[in-house]
Amino acid sequence: MHGLGNSYIYVDGFRDPLPNEERLPNLASEVANPYTGIGSDGLILILPSNVADVRMRVFNSDGSEAKNCGNGLRCVSKYAYEHQYVEHENFSIETLGGIVESQVHLDEEGKVSEVTVDMGVPRLKRKDVPMRGKGGALEENAIGVTETINGIDYTFTAVSMGNPHAVFFVDKLADAMIETVGPLIEKADLFPDGTNVEFISTLNASEIDFAVWERGSGITQACGTGACAAVVAAVLNGETKKDEAITVHLPGGDLTIHWSSKDDHVWMKGTAVTVCTGIYFQA
Amino acid sequence: MHGLGNSYIYVDGFRDPLPNEERLPNLASEVANPYTGIGSDGLILILPSNVADVRMRVFNSDGSEAKNCGNGLRCVSKYAYEHQYVEHENFSIETLGGIVESQVHLDEEGKVSEVTVDMGVPRLKRKDVPMRGKGGALEENAIGVTETINGIDYTFTAVSMGNPHAVFFVDKLADAMIETVGPLIEKADLFPDGTNVEFISTLNASEIDFAVWERGSGITQACGTGACAAVVAAVLNGETKKDEAITVHLPGGDLTIHWSSKDDHVWMKGTAVTVCTGIYFQA
Repeated sequence: MHGLGNSYIYVDGFRDPLPNEERLPNLASEVANPYTGIGSDGLILILPSNVADVRMRVFNSDGSEAKNCGNGLRCVSKYAYEHQYVEHENFSIETLGGIVESQVHLDEEGKVSEVTVDMGVPRLKRKDVPMRGKGGALEENAIGVTETINGIDYTFTAVSMGNPHAVFFVDKLADAMIETVGPLIEKADLFPDGTNVEFISTLNASEIDFAVWERGSGITQACGTGACAAVVAAVLNGETKKDEAITVHLPGGDLTIHWSSKDDHVWMKGTAVTVCTGIYFQA
Repeated sequence: MHGLGNSYIYVDGFRDPLPNEERLPNLASEVANPYTGIGSDGLILILPSNVADVRMRVFNSDGSEAKNCGNGLRCVSKYAYEHQYVEHENFSIETLGGIVESQVHLDEEGKVSEVTVDMGVPRLKRKDVPMRGKGGALEENAIGVTETINGIDYTFTAVSMGNPHAVFFVDKLADAMIETVGPLIEKADLFPDGTNVEFISTLNASEIDFAVWERGSGITQACGTGACAAVVAAVLNGETKKDEAITVHLPGGDLTIHWSSKDDHVWMKGTAVTVCTGIYFQA
């Protein structure tokens, strides 16, 4: 399945026996291999949970386990609902990063066309991003701050959605700019863990153009947490409003995001697509 | 299925109805897409034939139809034999480039472990490679010739296996050399259609190390026609002999190749691996 081109192999742990725990990292690398495996961004297990309606485990293609995956949550939600592993259109999903809420949206045939998932509360203090700062600055937000990197001043907003983001407002998106500024900011001393870098152009109060330089990956088609960080930054800079559904145009497709004033959570709505189903023959 | 990491989606036209002819190029691009499709080097159809035991059609990921594919022939052979679409271990396969012979080799369980396929007769005249030459040189071979490209002398052997190859003998394979010399030779004026570039190091009379710079693709894990061209060049330069089974160590795995003095055909033996089977949901 894929969400905006973020493609994983999903294993149904409700139905099928799973490999041993110690086998999982290698299995993820094997199936993800585009030459000798199926080819994917990794492996996601859809499992029963003791504390939520469904449990999701995400293994990256390098075998490491991820805390969460926004695009994966949508696909797991679609799969679990369509296979009747959950009873209602609203349900909870256990992840390594905590329990999150999900809601499926149905088309006329009763199939899941879109899914809204809870992407959590954004954290804005420099120390939480994490981003360096002098003295008391670590306890403060970095909204529209100007920092000098390699002798040049850059103005951006820093947001953590569980991972770090530096969001730049620009008049118009351009690949040359993303390829130049992206890696420079990603690896700047200012960000001790590195950072994802987003470039957004506000079209109107409910629509933004979006491009991303992902930490460790470069330009990608879609980044769920990046789109959330972009909307948070847009609200904080007065470009859009809380509780407003903002359509984010990513290279891979659209996501609709709103930052709720009720509980401060960010909610992300988007598609989930089944590409194929089948049986994998272990090498 | 894959042969040395050369991975295609195979469709069983003996069993399943096929999409319309005009839909095939787009379908190949869709399934080959690593983000929104399954991810592969293309799509291969396994079909009944009026003139051979099986028919193979190869669509590249850009939707174009290929004349032949050595790694694909091995996978088609394994599939056709294991699904009992052919009766014997020797059978014929119709391709866009002509009819070729194939032989499967079985393991103790009766599964196909390796396949030997006919890769045809090498063509050596410059005009057939094609490679430029002055006056009567077009009618002559280019075995161990020295040509000046960008002011530097390069010595190599030119072979066509249906596509052009320039084979270099080196003491030891090195990525830096392949990345420098490969693209220079590929695009040299000397080769009007461009050329694949092979680097080989003879270990002994029956074993060679092999690396390839593929025309249009750069460094790849395996190139079946390139491995055949390498063995032909090794024989022509007296490094190995005709009718001798030569093990070629490619980055993606081994191929065993012999150039038959009986009919001048080159035969390639190697593995074919089933990765997964399943149902694709058209977008």
